[in-house]
Amino acid sequence: MIAQPLTDFSRLSINDATTKVQWTLEEEIRGYADMGIHGISIWRDKLEACGVSKAAQLLRDNNMTVTGVCRGGMFPATTREARKAAVEDNWRAIDDAAQLNAQCLVLVVGGLPEHSKDIAGARQMVLDGMHGIVEHARQAGMPLAIEPLHPMYAADRACVNTMGQANDLCDVLGEGVGIALDVFHVWWDPELKKQIQRAGKERLLAFHICDWRMPMSDMLLDRAMMGDGVIDIPLIRSWVEAEGYQGFHEVEIFSADHWWKKPAEEVLQVCKERYLTVV
Amino acid sequence: MIAQPLTDFSRLSINDATTKVQWTLEEEIRGYADMGIHGISIWRDKLEACGVSKAAQLLRDNNMTVTGVCRGGMFPATTREARKAAVEDNWRAIDDAAQLNAQCLVLVVGGLPEHSKDIAGARQMVLDGMHGIVEHARQAGMPLAIEPLHPMYAADRACVNTMGQANDLCDVLGEGVGIALDVFHVWWDPELKKQIQRAGKERLLAFHICDWRMPMSDMLLDRAMMGDGVIDIPLIRSWVEAEGYQGFHEVEIFSADHWWKKPAEEVLQVCKERYLTVV
Repeated sequence: MIAQPLTDFSRLSINDATTKVQWTLEEEIRGYADMGIHGISIWRDKLEACGVSKAAQLLRDNNMTVTGVCRGGMFPATTREARKAAVEDNWRAIDDAAQLNAQCLVLVVGGLPEHSKDIAGARQMVLDGMHGIVEHARQAGMPLAIEPLHPMYAADRACVNTMGQANDLCDVLGEGVGIALDVFHVWWDPELKKQIQRAGKERLLAFHICDWRMPMSDMLLDRAMMGDGVIDIPLIRSWVEAEGYQGFHEVEIFSADHWWKKPAEEVLQVCKERYLTVV
Repeated sequence: MIAQPLTDFSRLSINDATTKVQWTLEEEIRGYADMGIHGISIWRDKLEACGVSKAAQLLRDNNMTVTGVCRGGMFPATTREARKAAVEDNWRAIDDAAQLNAQCLVLVVGGLPEHSKDIAGARQMVLDGMHGIVEHARQAGMPLAIEPLHPMYAADRACVNTMGQANDLCDVLGEGVGIALDVFHVWWDPELKKQIQRAGKERLLAFHICDWRMPMSDMLLDRAMMGDGVIDIPLIRSWVEAEGYQGFHEVEIFSADHWWKKPAEEVLQVCKERYLTVV
Protein backbone atom coordinates (compact mmCIF):
# COMPACT_ATOMS: atom_id res chain seq x y z
CA MET A 1 0.00 0.00 0.00
CA ILE A 2 1.29 3.42 -0.99
CA ALA A 3 0.39 6.48 1.04
CA GLN A 4 -1.90 8.84 -0.84
CA PRO A 5 -0.30 12.25 -1.41
CA LEU A 6 -1.46 14.91 0.99
CA THR A 7 -3.19 17.74 -0.82
CA ASP A 8 -4.26 20.19 1.86
CA PHE A 9 -3.46 21.23 5.40
CA SER A 10 -6.61 20.03 7.11
CA ARG A 11 -4.70 17.34 9.00
CA LEU A 12 -1.49 19.28 9.59
CA SER A 13 -0.67 20.04 13.20
CA ILE A 14 2.36 21.82 14.60
CA ASN A 15 3.79 20.76 17.91
CA ASP A 16 4.64 24.08 19.45
CA ALA A 17 8.13 22.95 20.39
CA THR A 18 8.78 23.60 16.70
CA THR A 19 8.51 27.33 17.40
CA LYS A 20 9.63 27.03 20.99
CA VAL A 21 12.10 29.87 20.87
CA GLN A 22 10.34 32.28 18.55
CA TRP A 23 6.79 32.52 19.82
CA THR A 24 4.65 32.49 22.95
CA LEU A 25 1.55 30.30 22.95
CA GLU A 26 -0.63 33.30 22.14
CA GLU A 27 1.54 34.08 19.15
CA GLU A 28 1.53 30.45 18.08
CA ILE A 29 -2.23 30.05 18.15
CA ARG A 30 -2.77 33.19 16.11
CA GLY A 31 0.26 32.61 13.92
CA TYR A 32 -0.54 29.02 13.01
CA ALA A 33 -4.16 29.88 12.29
CA ASP A 34 -3.08 32.84 10.14
CA MET A 35 -1.09 30.39 8.02
CA GLY A 36 -4.03 28.04 7.60
CA ILE A 37 -2.83 25.50 10.12
CA HIS A 38 -5.52 24.51 12.60
CA GLY A 39 -3.82 21.74 14.55
CA ILE A 40 -1.51 22.47 17.46
CA SER A 41 0.16 20.43 20.15
CA ILE A 42 1.05 22.37 23.26
CA TRP A 43 3.82 22.03 25.82
CA ARG A 44 2.89 22.66 29.40
CA ASP A 45 5.48 25.34 30.09
CA LYS A 46 3.96 27.58 27.45
CA LEU A 47 0.48 26.65 28.56
CA GLU A 48 1.29 27.69 32.09
CA ALA A 49 2.78 30.96 30.93
CA CYS A 50 -0.39 31.74 29.00
CA GLY A 51 -2.87 30.36 31.48
CA VAL A 52 -5.17 27.46 30.67
CA SER A 53 -8.44 29.39 30.51
CA LYS A 54 -7.02 32.08 28.29
CA ALA A 55 -5.45 29.46 26.05
CA ALA A 56 -8.72 27.57 25.77
CA GLN A 57 -10.51 30.75 24.69
CA LEU A 58 -7.84 31.64 22.14
CA LEU A 59 -7.96 28.13 20.73
CA ARG A 60 -11.72 28.31 20.30
CA ASP A 61 -11.52 31.78 18.77
CA ASN A 62 -9.03 30.54 16.20
CA ASN A 63 -10.74 27.24 15.44
CA MET A 64 -7.75 25.22 16.61
CA THR A 65 -7.72 21.50 17.35
CA VAL A 66 -5.31 20.51 20.11
CA THR A 67 -3.76 17.27 18.90
CA GLY A 68 -1.87 16.73 22.12
CA VAL A 69 -0.60 18.21 25.35
CA CYS A 70 3.07 17.57 26.10
CA ARG A 71 3.66 16.06 28.42
CA GLY A 72 2.72 13.79 31.24
CA GLY A 73 4.79 10.86 32.38
CA MET A 74 8.18 11.06 34.11
CA PHE A 75 7.10 8.43 36.61
CA PRO A 76 10.32 6.81 37.89
CA ALA A 77 11.87 8.43 40.93
CA THR A 78 13.96 7.31 43.87
CA THR A 79 11.46 7.93 46.65
CA ARG A 80 7.85 6.97 47.10
CA GLU A 81 7.03 10.64 47.74
CA ALA A 82 8.58 11.71 44.46
CA ARG A 83 6.69 9.02 42.57
CA LYS A 84 3.46 10.13 44.23
CA ALA A 85 4.20 13.73 43.27
CA ALA A 86 4.71 12.61 39.67
CA VAL A 87 1.32 10.90 39.66
CA GLU A 88 -0.34 14.02 41.05
CA ASP A 89 1.38 16.16 38.44
CA ASN A 90 -0.05 13.87 35.78
CA TRP A 91 -3.53 14.38 37.23
CA ARG A 92 -3.10 18.12 36.73
CA ALA A 93 -1.84 17.56 33.21
CA ILE A 94 -4.90 15.45 32.45
CA ASP A 95 -7.19 18.17 33.79
CA ASP A 96 -5.44 20.86 31.77
CA ALA A 97 -5.56 18.74 28.63
CA ALA A 98 -9.27 18.15 29.18
CA GLN A 99 -9.87 21.86 29.56
CA LEU A 100 -8.28 22.37 26.13
CA ASN A 101 -10.33 19.53 24.69
CA ALA A 102 -7.04 17.96 23.60
CA GLN A 103 -7.08 14.73 21.63
CA CYS A 104 -4.59 13.14 24.03
CA LEU A 105 -2.08 13.71 26.77
CA VAL A 106 1.32 12.58 25.50
CA LEU A 107 3.30 10.59 28.04
CA VAL A 108 7.08 10.65 28.04
CA VAL A 109 7.37 8.05 30.71
CA GLY A 110 10.74 8.91 32.26
CA GLY A 111 14.10 7.19 32.45
CA LEU A 112 16.25 5.89 35.28
CA PRO A 113 15.91 7.43 38.72
CA GLU A 114 19.04 9.30 39.81
CA HIS A 115 22.01 7.00 40.43
CA SER A 116 19.97 3.96 39.40
CA LYS A 117 21.08 1.35 36.89
CA ASP A 118 17.89 -0.66 37.25
CA ILE A 119 16.04 -0.20 33.98
CA ALA A 120 13.69 -3.09 34.68
CA GLY A 121 12.81 -1.38 37.95
CA ALA A 122 12.23 1.91 36.16
CA ARG A 123 9.91 0.17 33.73
CA GLN A 124 7.95 -1.24 36.65
CA MET A 125 7.69 2.27 38.11
CA VAL A 126 6.22 3.44 34.81
CA LEU A 127 3.56 0.77 34.96
CA ASP A 128 2.83 1.59 38.61
CA GLY A 129 2.60 5.28 37.79
CA MET A 130 0.24 4.66 34.92
CA HIS A 131 -1.97 2.55 37.15
CA GLY A 132 -2.15 5.66 39.34
CA ILE A 133 -3.44 7.93 36.58
CA VAL A 134 -5.46 5.82 34.19
CA GLU A 135 -8.71 6.03 36.12
CA HIS A 136 -8.36 9.81 36.48
CA ALA A 137 -7.79 10.01 32.73
CA ARG A 138 -10.84 7.89 31.96
CA GLN A 139 -13.04 10.02 34.15
CA ALA A 140 -11.74 13.13 32.43
CA GLY A 141 -12.27 11.51 29.04
CA MET A 142 -8.62 12.18 28.22
CA PRO A 143 -6.79 9.50 26.21
CA LEU A 144 -3.25 8.79 27.40
CA ALA A 145 -0.76 8.46 24.55
CA ILE A 146 2.40 6.61 25.55
CA GLU A 147 5.22 7.88 23.36
CA PRO A 148 8.00 5.34 22.90
CA LEU A 149 11.22 7.33 22.75
CA HIS A 150 14.32 6.37 20.82
CA PRO A 151 16.56 3.98 22.79
CA MET A 152 19.21 6.70 23.00
CA TYR A 153 16.92 8.36 25.56
CA ALA A 154 16.36 5.23 27.65
CA ALA A 155 18.46 6.49 30.54
CA ASP A 156 17.36 10.07 30.82
CA ARG A 157 13.92 10.50 29.25
CA ALA A 158 11.93 7.37 28.60
CA CYS A 159 12.55 3.72 29.35
CA VAL A 160 9.72 2.78 26.98
CA ASN A 161 11.65 2.61 23.73
CA THR A 162 9.67 0.55 21.26
CA MET A 163 6.14 0.27 19.96
CA GLY A 164 6.23 -3.28 21.30
CA GLN A 165 6.72 -2.06 24.85
CA ALA A 166 4.00 0.54 24.42
CA ASN A 167 1.63 -2.11 23.13
CA ASP A 168 2.48 -4.31 26.10
CA LEU A 169 1.55 -1.46 28.44
CA CYS A 170 -1.69 -0.90 26.55
CA ASP A 171 -2.50 -4.60 26.94
CA VAL A 172 -2.14 -4.34 30.69
CA LEU A 173 -3.76 -0.95 31.23
CA GLY A 174 -6.74 -1.33 28.94
CA GLU A 175 -9.21 1.27 27.86
CA GLY A 176 -8.14 4.88 27.48
CA VAL A 177 -4.46 4.18 26.85
CA GLY A 178 -2.84 4.35 23.43
CA ILE A 179 0.32 5.34 21.65
CA ALA A 180 1.86 8.46 20.14
CA LEU A 181 4.04 7.31 17.26
CA ASP A 182 6.89 9.66 16.40
CA VAL A 183 8.79 8.57 13.30
CA PHE A 184 12.02 9.99 14.76
CA HIS A 185 11.89 7.52 17.64
CA VAL A 186 10.75 4.35 15.91
CA TRP A 187 11.84 4.47 12.26
CA TRP A 188 14.75 2.06 12.87
CA ASP A 189 12.66 -0.66 14.57
CA PRO A 190 12.52 -3.88 12.53
CA GLU A 191 9.22 -4.66 14.27
CA LEU A 192 7.64 -1.29 13.45
CA LYS A 193 5.11 -2.44 10.88
CA LYS A 194 4.10 -5.43 12.96
CA GLN A 195 3.66 -3.33 16.08
CA ILE A 196 1.63 -0.70 14.21
CA GLN A 197 -0.66 -3.50 13.08
CA ARG A 198 -0.83 -4.78 16.64
CA ALA A 199 -1.72 -1.30 17.90
CA GLY A 200 -4.49 -0.83 15.37
CA LYS A 201 -6.63 2.24 14.89
CA GLU A 202 -7.89 2.37 18.45
CA ARG A 203 -4.44 2.74 20.01
CA LEU A 204 -2.89 5.03 17.39
CA LEU A 205 -3.61 8.36 19.03
CA ALA A 206 -1.03 10.60 17.42
CA PHE A 207 1.41 10.58 14.51
CA HIS A 208 4.46 12.82 14.90
CA ILE A 209 6.77 13.69 12.06
CA CYS A 210 10.20 15.22 11.57
CA ASP A 211 13.36 13.62 10.19
CA TRP A 212 16.62 11.98 11.29
CA ARG A 213 19.59 14.06 10.22
CA MET A 214 22.88 12.40 9.46
CA PRO A 215 25.19 13.26 11.05
CA MET A 216 23.33 14.64 14.05
CA SER A 217 25.10 17.31 16.07
CA ASP A 218 23.05 16.90 19.22
CA MET A 219 21.12 13.89 20.45
CA LEU A 220 18.17 15.99 21.57
CA LEU A 221 18.08 19.30 19.73
CA ASP A 222 19.10 18.52 16.15
CA ARG A 223 15.99 17.05 14.62
CA ALA A 224 15.57 17.67 10.93
CA MET A 225 12.74 19.00 8.79
CA MET A 226 10.81 16.33 6.94
CA GLY A 227 12.77 15.46 3.81
CA ASP A 228 16.15 16.43 5.22
CA GLY A 229 16.89 13.03 6.71
CA VAL A 230 16.71 9.30 6.19
CA ILE A 231 13.21 8.44 7.38
CA ASP A 232 10.76 7.06 4.82
CA ILE A 233 7.82 9.00 6.24
CA PRO A 234 5.28 8.07 3.52
CA LEU A 235 5.99 4.40 4.16
CA ILE A 236 5.32 4.69 7.88
CA ARG A 237 2.28 6.87 7.20
CA SER A 238 0.97 4.18 4.86
CA TRP A 239 1.25 1.67 7.69
CA VAL A 240 -0.72 3.76 10.19
CA GLU A 241 -3.31 4.64 7.56
CA ALA A 242 -3.69 0.97 6.66
CA GLU A 243 -4.90 0.55 10.25
CA GLY A 244 -7.46 3.30 9.71
CA TYR A 245 -5.61 6.20 11.29
CA GLN A 246 -7.27 9.39 10.12
CA GLY A 247 -5.88 11.84 12.65
CA PHE A 248 -3.50 14.74 12.32
CA HIS A 249 0.13 14.64 11.23
CA GLU A 250 1.98 16.60 13.88
CA VAL A 251 5.31 18.25 13.08
CA GLU A 252 7.62 18.27 16.09
CA ILE A 253 11.13 19.61 15.48
CA PHE A 254 13.63 20.43 18.20
CA SER A 255 16.37 22.30 16.41
CA ALA A 256 18.52 24.60 18.51
CA ASP A 257 21.04 25.49 15.82
CA HIS A 258 18.82 25.69 12.77
CA TRP A 259 15.05 26.00 12.81
CA TRP A 260 14.81 27.72 16.17
CA LYS A 261 17.05 30.42 14.76
CA LYS A 262 14.76 31.20 11.84
CA PRO A 263 11.61 33.36 11.83
CA ALA A 264 8.60 31.26 12.84
CA GLU A 265 6.74 32.15 9.65
CA GLU A 266 9.60 30.78 7.57
CA VAL A 267 9.69 27.55 9.58
CA LEU A 268 5.96 27.08 9.15
CA GLN A 269 6.12 27.82 5.45
CA VAL A 270 8.76 25.11 5.00
CA CYS A 271 6.67 22.72 7.11
CA LYS A 272 3.75 23.31 4.77
CA GLU A 273 5.82 22.84 1.61
CA ARG A 274 7.39 19.66 2.86
CA TYR A 275 4.07 18.38 4.14
CA LEU A 276 2.71 18.25 0.60
CA THR A 277 5.86 16.81 -0.97
CA VAL A 278 7.70 14.39 1.35
CA VAL A 279 5.25 13.34 4.07
CA MET B 1 21.91 -15.48 39.46
CA ILE B 2 24.53 -12.99 40.57
CA ALA B 3 27.75 -12.58 38.61
CA GLN B 4 30.78 -13.86 40.52
CA PRO B 5 33.28 -11.08 41.21
CA LEU B 6 36.23 -11.06 38.86
CA THR B 7 39.48 -11.62 40.73
CA ASP B 8 42.19 -11.61 38.10
CA PHE B 9 42.92 -10.36 34.60
CA SER B 10 43.06 -13.68 32.79
CA ARG B 11 39.86 -12.89 30.87
CA LEU B 12 40.44 -9.17 30.38
CA SER B 13 40.90 -8.01 26.82
CA ILE B 14 41.42 -4.49 25.53
CA ASN B 15 39.96 -3.48 22.22
CA ASP B 16 42.71 -1.38 20.79
CA ALA B 17 40.35 1.43 19.87
CA THR B 18 40.63 2.17 23.59
CA THR B 19 44.20 3.39 23.00
CA LYS B 20 43.56 4.40 19.41
CA VAL B 21 45.23 7.77 19.66
CA GLN B 22 48.07 6.99 22.02
CA TRP B 23 49.70 3.83 20.68
CA THR B 24 50.55 1.94 17.51
CA LEU B 25 49.72 -1.76 17.39
CA GLU B 26 53.30 -2.67 18.26
CA GLU B 27 53.15 -0.43 21.32
CA GLU B 28 49.77 -1.86 22.27
CA ILE B 29 50.85 -5.48 22.12
CA ARG B 30 53.92 -4.86 24.26
CA GLY B 31 52.17 -2.32 26.48
CA TYR B 32 49.13 -4.45 27.27
CA ALA B 33 51.31 -7.49 27.96
CA ASP B 34 53.57 -5.43 30.21
CA MET B 35 50.53 -4.59 32.29
CA GLY B 36 49.48 -8.21 32.59
CA ILE B 37 46.71 -8.01 30.01
CA HIS B 38 46.87 -10.80 27.47
CA GLY B 39 43.72 -10.23 25.47
CA ILE B 40 43.55 -7.75 22.62
CA SER B 41 41.08 -6.91 19.90
CA ILE B 42 42.59 -5.24 16.87
CA TRP B 43 41.26 -2.74 14.34
CA ARG B 44 42.30 -3.28 10.77
CA ASP B 45 43.77 0.17 10.19
CA LYS B 46 46.37 -0.45 12.88
CA LEU B 47 46.87 -4.00 11.67
CA GLU B 48 47.58 -2.76 8.18
CA ALA B 49 50.03 -0.16 9.47
CA CYS B 50 51.91 -2.84 11.37
CA GLY B 51 51.67 -5.61 8.81
CA VAL B 52 49.83 -8.85 9.50
CA SER B 53 52.87 -11.14 9.68
CA LYS B 54 54.75 -8.86 11.99
CA ALA B 55 51.67 -8.47 14.18
CA ALA B 56 51.18 -12.22 14.34
CA GLN B 57 54.78 -12.69 15.47
CA LEU B 58 54.54 -9.94 18.10
CA LEU B 59 51.31 -11.43 19.40
CA ARG B 60 52.92 -14.85 19.78
CA ASP B 61 56.01 -13.40 21.42
CA ASN B 62 53.85 -11.64 23.98
CA ASN B 63 51.45 -14.49 24.63
CA MET B 64 48.45 -12.48 23.44
CA THR B 65 45.03 -13.85 22.59
CA VAL B 66 43.24 -11.93 19.84
CA THR B 67 39.64 -11.77 20.99
CA GLY B 68 38.48 -10.15 17.79
CA VAL B 69 39.41 -8.32 14.63
CA CYS B 70 37.44 -5.13 13.93
CA ARG B 71 35.86 -5.10 11.57
CA GLY B 72 34.19 -6.75 8.68
CA GLY B 73 30.69 -5.94 7.51
CA MET B 74 29.63 -2.69 5.84
CA PHE B 75 27.66 -4.62 3.24
CA PRO B 76 24.95 -2.22 1.97
CA ALA B 77 25.92 -0.08 -0.98
CA THR B 78 24.15 1.50 -3.92
CA THR B 79 25.74 -0.49 -6.73
CA ARG B 80 26.25 -4.18 -7.27
CA GLU B 81 29.96 -3.51 -7.80
CA ALA B 82 30.29 -1.77 -4.46
CA ARG B 83 28.50 -4.59 -2.69
CA LYS B 84 30.80 -7.11 -4.38
CA ALA B 85 33.81 -5.07 -3.30
CA ALA B 86 32.51 -5.14 0.27
CA VAL B 87 32.23 -8.93 0.16
CA GLU B 88 35.77 -9.22 -1.15
CA ASP B 89 37.04 -6.89 1.53
CA ASN B 90 35.42 -9.17 4.09
CA TRP B 91 37.24 -12.16 2.60
CA ARG B 92 40.52 -10.33 3.20
CA ALA B 93 39.46 -9.48 6.74
CA ILE B 94 38.66 -13.14 7.36
CA ASP B 95 42.08 -14.18 6.08
CA ASP B 96 43.85 -11.59 8.20
CA ALA B 97 41.88 -12.59 11.29
CA ALA B 98 42.76 -16.23 10.64
CA GLN B 99 46.43 -15.37 10.36
CA LEU B 100 46.21 -13.79 13.83
CA ASN B 101 44.34 -16.81 15.15
CA ALA B 102 41.62 -14.41 16.25
CA GLN B 103 38.61 -15.72 18.11
CA CYS B 104 36.24 -13.97 15.72
CA LEU B 105 35.87 -11.35 13.04
CA VAL B 106 33.50 -8.67 14.34
CA LEU B 107 30.92 -7.53 11.79
CA VAL B 108 29.55 -4.01 11.86
CA VAL B 109 27.09 -4.67 9.12
CA GLY B 110 26.62 -1.19 7.67
CA GLY B 111 23.74 1.28 7.49
CA LEU B 112 21.79 2.84 4.67
CA PRO B 113 23.42 3.23 1.26
CA GLU B 114 23.96 6.85 0.28
CA HIS B 115 20.69 8.73 -0.33
CA SER B 116 18.66 5.65 0.57
CA LYS B 117 15.77 5.61 3.02
CA ASP B 118 15.13 1.90 2.54
CA ILE B 119 16.21 0.28 5.79
CA ALA B 120 14.45 -2.99 4.97
CA GLY B 121 16.43 -3.06 1.74
CA ALA B 122 19.67 -2.38 3.60
CA ARG B 123 18.90 -5.26 5.92
CA GLN B 124 18.41 -7.53 2.93
CA MET B 125 21.79 -6.37 1.57
CA VAL B 126 23.35 -7.38 4.88
CA LEU B 127 21.90 -10.86 4.60
CA ASP B 128 23.03 -11.12 0.97
CA GLY B 129 26.51 -9.94 1.89
CA MET B 130 26.78 -12.44 4.70
CA HIS B 131 25.73 -15.23 2.37
CA GLY B 132 28.70 -14.13 0.27
CA ILE B 133 31.23 -14.53 3.07
CA VAL B 134 30.03 -17.29 5.37
CA GLU B 135 31.50 -20.16 3.37
CA HIS B 136 34.85 -18.38 3.12
CA ALA B 137 34.76 -17.89 6.90
CA ARG B 138 33.94 -21.53 7.55
CA GLN B 139 36.79 -22.69 5.38
CA ALA B 140 39.13 -20.35 7.21
CA GLY B 141 37.79 -21.54 10.55
CA MET B 142 36.99 -17.94 11.44
CA PRO B 143 33.76 -17.34 13.40
CA LEU B 144 31.78 -14.31 12.26
CA ALA B 145 30.46 -12.21 15.14
CA ILE B 146 27.56 -9.96 14.16
CA GLU B 147 27.60 -6.93 16.43
CA PRO B 148 24.18 -5.35 16.87
CA LEU B 149 24.79 -1.61 17.13
CA HIS B 150 22.67 0.82 19.08
CA PRO B 151 19.64 2.04 17.10
CA MET B 152 21.16 5.52 17.03
CA TYR B 153 23.62 4.13 14.46
CA ALA B 154 20.97 2.47 12.28
CA ALA B 155 21.39 4.97 9.46
CA ASP B 156 25.14 5.34 9.28
CA ARG B 157 26.81 2.29 10.78
CA ALA B 158 24.66 -0.77 11.31
CA CYS B 159 21.06 -1.58 10.47
CA VAL B 160 21.25 -4.62 12.76
CA ASN B 161 20.28 -3.01 16.02
CA THR B 162 19.09 -5.69 18.39
CA MET B 163 20.17 -9.09 19.62
CA GLY B 164 16.89 -10.34 18.20
CA GLN B 165 17.88 -9.31 14.68
CA ALA B 166 21.33 -10.84 15.13
CA ASN B 167 19.76 -14.08 16.30
CA ASP B 168 17.45 -14.06 13.28
CA LEU B 169 20.50 -13.75 11.00
CA CYS B 170 22.22 -16.59 12.86
CA ASP B 171 19.12 -18.74 12.35
CA VAL B 172 19.30 -18.21 8.61
CA LEU B 173 23.06 -18.38 8.15
CA GLY B 174 23.81 -21.35 10.37
CA GLU B 175 27.15 -22.67 11.48
CA GLY B 176 30.05 -20.30 11.98
CA VAL B 177 27.99 -17.19 12.65
CA GLY B 178 27.44 -15.75 16.11
CA ILE B 179 27.12 -12.48 17.99
CA ALA B 180 29.37 -9.90 19.60
CA LEU B 181 27.42 -8.42 22.48
CA ASP B 182 28.48 -4.91 23.47
CA VAL B 183 26.69 -3.65 26.56
CA PHE B 184 26.77 -0.08 25.20
CA HIS B 185 24.61 -1.07 22.27
CA VAL B 186 22.09 -3.39 23.89
CA TRP B 187 21.70 -2.44 27.56
CA TRP B 188 18.38 -0.67 26.92
CA ASP B 189 16.70 -3.57 25.11
CA PRO B 190 13.73 -5.00 27.05
CA GLU B 191 14.33 -8.30 25.24
CA LEU B 192 18.01 -8.50 26.12
CA LYS B 193 17.88 -11.34 28.61
CA LYS B 194 15.55 -13.37 26.42
CA GLN B 195 17.72 -12.89 23.35
CA ILE B 196 20.89 -13.81 25.25
CA GLN B 197 19.17 -17.02 26.25
CA ARG B 198 18.13 -17.58 22.66
CA ALA B 199 21.71 -17.03 21.49
CA GLY B 200 23.14 -19.47 23.98
CA LYS B 201 26.78 -20.28 24.51
CA GLU B 202 27.46 -21.28 20.93
CA ARG B 203 26.51 -17.92 19.45
CA LEU B 204 27.98 -15.70 22.16
CA LEU B 205 31.36 -15.04 20.59
CA ALA B 206 32.42 -11.84 22.34
CA PHE B 207 31.39 -9.68 25.28
CA HIS B 208 32.30 -6.00 25.00
CA ILE B 209 32.17 -3.59 27.91
CA CYS B 210 32.25 0.14 28.52
CA ASP B 211 29.54 2.42 29.90
CA TRP B 212 26.80 4.82 28.84
CA ARG B 213 27.55 8.33 30.01
CA MET B 214 24.74 10.72 30.80
CA PRO B 215 24.69 13.24 29.27
CA MET B 216 26.72 12.12 26.28
CA SER B 217 28.57 14.84 24.37
CA ASP B 218 29.03 12.87 21.16
CA MET B 219 27.01 9.98 19.81
CA LEU B 220 30.11 8.09 18.70
CA LEU B 221 33.15 9.23 20.63
CA ASP B 222 31.98 9.75 24.20
CA ARG B 223 31.78 6.28 25.62
CA ALA B 224 32.43 6.03 29.34
CA MET B 225 34.71 3.86 31.44
CA MET B 226 32.95 1.00 33.17
CA GLY B 227 31.35 2.38 36.33
CA ASP B 228 30.96 5.92 35.01
CA GLY B 229 27.58 5.33 33.43
CA VAL B 230 24.20 3.73 33.86
CA ILE B 231 24.75 0.20 32.57
CA ASP B 232 24.38 -2.65 35.05
CA ILE B 233 27.32 -4.59 33.62
CA PRO B 234 27.39 -7.36 36.25
CA LEU B 235 23.74 -8.11 35.54
CA ILE B 236 24.33 -8.50 31.82
CA ARG B 237 27.50 -10.49 32.50
CA SER B 238 25.48 -12.81 34.73
CA TRP B 239 23.11 -13.45 31.84
CA VAL B 240 25.83 -14.38 29.36
CA GLU B 241 27.59 -16.50 31.96
CA ALA B 242 24.32 -18.27 32.75
CA GLU B 243 24.47 -19.47 29.14
CA GLY B 244 27.97 -20.79 29.70
CA TYR B 245 29.98 -17.92 28.25
CA GLN B 246 33.54 -18.26 29.50
CA GLY B 247 35.32 -15.98 27.06
CA PHE B 248 37.07 -12.68 27.50
CA HIS B 249 35.57 -9.39 28.64
CA GLU B 250 36.72 -6.86 26.09
CA VAL B 251 36.96 -3.20 27.00
CA GLU B 252 36.15 -0.94 24.05
CA ILE B 253 36.02 2.79 24.75
CA PHE B 254 35.88 5.50 22.10
CA SER B 255 36.52 8.70 24.00
CA ALA B 256 37.87 11.61 22.01
CA ASP B 257 37.65 14.20 24.76
CA HIS B 258 38.62 12.14 27.78
CA TRP B 259 40.37 8.77 27.68
CA TRP B 260 42.10 9.31 24.35
CA LYS B 261 43.71 12.37 25.89
CA LYS B 262 45.26 10.47 28.79
CA PRO B 263 48.45 8.38 28.77
CA ALA B 264 47.69 4.84 27.66
CA GLU B 265 49.16 3.36 30.85
CA GLU B 266 46.75 5.42 32.94
CA VAL B 267 43.78 4.33 30.84
CA LEU B 268 44.76 0.69 31.18
CA GLN B 269 45.33 1.03 34.91
CA VAL B 270 41.81 2.42 35.35
CA CYS B 271 40.43 -0.37 33.13
CA LYS B 272 42.05 -2.92 35.43
CA GLU B 273 40.77 -1.27 38.61
CA ARG B 274 37.24 -1.00 37.29
CA TYR B 275 37.37 -4.53 35.91
CA LEU B 276 37.69 -5.94 39.42
CA THR B 277 35.13 -3.62 41.00
CA VAL B 278 32.24 -2.77 38.67
CA VAL B 279 32.26 -5.37 35.87
